[in-house]
Amino acid sequence: MGNLVLDGVDVVELGRELGTPLYITSRSRLEENIREYRKYFKNADIYYAVKANNNLAIMKIISSRGLGADVFSDGELYLALMGGFKREKILFNGNSKSTEDIVSGIEAGVRFSVDSIDELHAISEIAEEEVEMAFRINPDVSPETHPKIATGLKESKFGIPWEMAERAYEKALKTDHIVPAGIHCHIGSQILSPDPFIEALEKMFDLAIRVEKLGIELDFLDMGGGIGIQYSEEEKAPELKEFSERILDTYEDRLGDLKSEPNLILEPGRSIVGNTTFLLTKVNAVKRAFRNFVAVDAGFNLLMRPAMYGSYHRVVVANRVDETPSETYTIVGPICETGDVLAYDRMLPEVRRGDYVAILDTGAYGFSMSSQYNGRRRCAEVLVDNGRWWIIRERESYADLVGRQIIPPGI
Amino acid sequence: MGNLVLDGVDVVELGRELGTPLYITSRSRLEENIREYRKYFKNADIYYAVKANNNLAIMKIISSRGLGADVFSDGELYLALMGGFKREKILFNGNSKSTEDIVSGIEAGVRFSVDSIDELHAISEIAEEEVEMAFRINPDVSPETHPKIATGLKESKFGIPWEMAERAYEKALKTDHIVPAGIHCHIGSQILSPDPFIEALEKMFDLAIRVEKLGIELDFLDMGGGIGIQYSEEEKAPELKEFSERILDTYEDRLGDLKSEPNLILEPGRSIVGNTTFLLTKVNAVKRAFRNFVAVDAGFNLLMRPAMYGSYHRVVVANRVDETPSETYTIVGPICETGDVLAYDRMLPEVRRGDYVAILDTGAYGFSMSSQYNGRRRCAEVLVDNGRWWIIRERESYADLVGRQIIPPGI
Repeated sequence: MGNLVLDGVDVVELGRELGTPLYITSRSRLEENIREYRKYFKNADIYYAVKANNNLAIMKIISSRGLGADVFSDGELYLALMGGFKREKILFNGNSKSTEDIVSGIEAGVRFSVDSIDELHAISEIAEEEVEMAFRINPDVSPETHPKIATGLKESKFGIPWEMAERAYEKALKTDHIVPAGIHCHIGSQILSPDPFIEALEKMFDLAIRVEKLGIELDFLDMGGGIGIQYSEEEKAPELKEFSERILDTYEDRLGDLKSEPNLILEPGRSIVGNTTFLLTKVNAVKRAFRNFVAVDAGFNLLMRPAMYGSYHRVVVANRVDETPSETYTIVGPICETGDVLAYDRMLPEVRRGDYVAILDTGAYGFSMSSQYNGRRRCAEVLVDNGRWWIIRERESYADLVGRQIIPPGI
Repeated sequence: MGNLVLDGVDVVELGRELGTPLYITSRSRLEENIREYRKYFKNADIYYAVKANNNLAIMKIISSRGLGADVFSDGELYLALMGGFKREKILFNGNSKSTEDIVSGIEAGVRFSVDSIDELHAISEIAEEEVEMAFRINPDVSPETHPKIATGLKESKFGIPWEMAERAYEKALKTDHIVPAGIHCHIGSQILSPDPFIEALEKMFDLAIRVEKLGIELDFLDMGGGIGIQYSEEEKAPELKEFSERILDTYEDRLGDLKSEPNLILEPGRSIVGNTTFLLTKVNAVKRAFRNFVAVDAGFNLLMRPAMYGSYHRVVVANRVDETPSETYTIVGPICETGDVLAYDRMLPEVRRGDYVAILDTGAYGFSMSSQYNGRRRCAEVLVDNGRWWIIRERESYADLVGRQIIPPGI
């Protein structure tokens, strides 16, 4: 019948029944991604990066397979706990933690990744009992990725500069309520080669040796996340096996240099959820102008990545998968900005108003970055599983646009 | 006392009392901006661009002064009506209108700006009575602004290409339920010179002459919005008087070329609300690294412009306005992305954890583009007026992060 199918469910029929836009997530793909991580990183702790997708149903599936969570705010901590993650497997990251953030982390009893000496002091002042922590260290490693998401360069806002790391641990040792227990790094996002990870891990071990000499027992080395996924047709899908072999080899090689036996922690987000999800949209208009524009009902209000980073997502005319591509189209959203383009110049079968266009690989940094810009209600999310489906988030109502507003007297 | 004051209110005290982040809007400045438009564009219709800021209290002030509204979705139409705008002064714009959008516009009885022939047909099919409309025409005028917000270039997704405009009106005349009544243009945003507006207006009149010859009576010429505001210290504040003189001169000069006497419509957003508002943030950490980083509690979750467009906003240490700038700081937010920088390399007085930093001129495209990314609850908004203040939007709760989620059985 020429319709796109995900996990046994015809997504066009789903769009007709539930309306569009619609985020549709495959449970099987999600389970498969989790299984791969558990298989290839058997002895490591996998802390899912909640920021990639904090839908509760999706997080419950992830947490039920024994993964932990990397959270970045009090809100993400709240969501992670509701999503079933255990507090002893949650690390509270973040470069700018408010008092409220710190209090929530201490109350939940989670460990902290500390980004600055100011934060160290703030935690120390707020805490009444011991708090286990790592410093986030900036290793000055340069992965080949988009500059907005390369986080381990020395210019980046994140972490303690490499050359100040040892002194920071010395300071931590002398600070009340602070128990240094690990080292944390994160070099960026959507990285397609293991090389920068190896470079960072080597640096972490070099630092670990010096940190141990201060009398610190290291319980964990957290090398962050950032393993990429395949987005474009031409890209080679990164093989988790290759990453795990290189990383685990280095890890085991270097472990002999240390007295303690720190656990290895990884913080994948995109590679767990990215390829699980389609954003299904409906075509409102096709216009032949400077380009052939296909205007769909979702734009950067629901999927920020193309407008923000120039990201590439594969695009499929979901109700014409059996038709031959015949023309070049540019897929644009309904937002009042020229930059609201989801995909430039794609060869597709002839597209008409009423057709359905699926944007692939939108499980990571899709809904989690969504807004109500242009007065657009955020859309529903659906989980599909072997021919069956469940709504896991309802579409917002008009009332959700005015929710917490108050009109003062006399206006 | 060295604290920043807006409309007679000490914003630091406000931050201490209500918590941060906080959007703080001056009613006096808003009223002054509206007054200027009404004074300099006396005989024109001013349709406020709701997308810039759709807070109800702010819109009620604007609508109560007789302004109309430019809306871009069914949600913005809903908000505009709740904000007190009269349906006969609302134009429903948008390049990608869903059936739902069109139905809501027809039910409300507003006029449409139609972006494509597909949309023309869709309106015709849905409508049961006559619908007044303009085409949005792409005049291929190039203002000097950020490419993501220059909307009147021929490459842009917006409007009927200039050379197809006449044929579109011919088609409209023959289409059931469609009453062509105006011409609509919009050349972009944050434009600091009147020249491109004059160029566009001249083109609109050239087209109007040809459209009249088809037998169409023109009720309005809507030249869109886009008049910029001063953001940086070096920029010259655009003078509304200068824009109005140039625009109205051209308008009156050219009116003699027409048989009908179309009203002039303008759609300002930024120049009505932009300079009315501060985003007040609190400093969570100061870190001396590659740069001097000041980590505050708001990032691109609440103010997208710097990360998205590289926009410049003035920055003030709100509790140290009487101190001399002594060092260069980069203001960063709490979001887990390297691109989450609000301001690079600003000379400021010495900044410490606990200080307050105000980001100025954030009334337009501030809260309206906000998200819950990184699990951060959206902040409160406050209206200040001559020494008094009112909360006009409460801060979100944790529950607002999970609002419409459903966990399927068995997960």
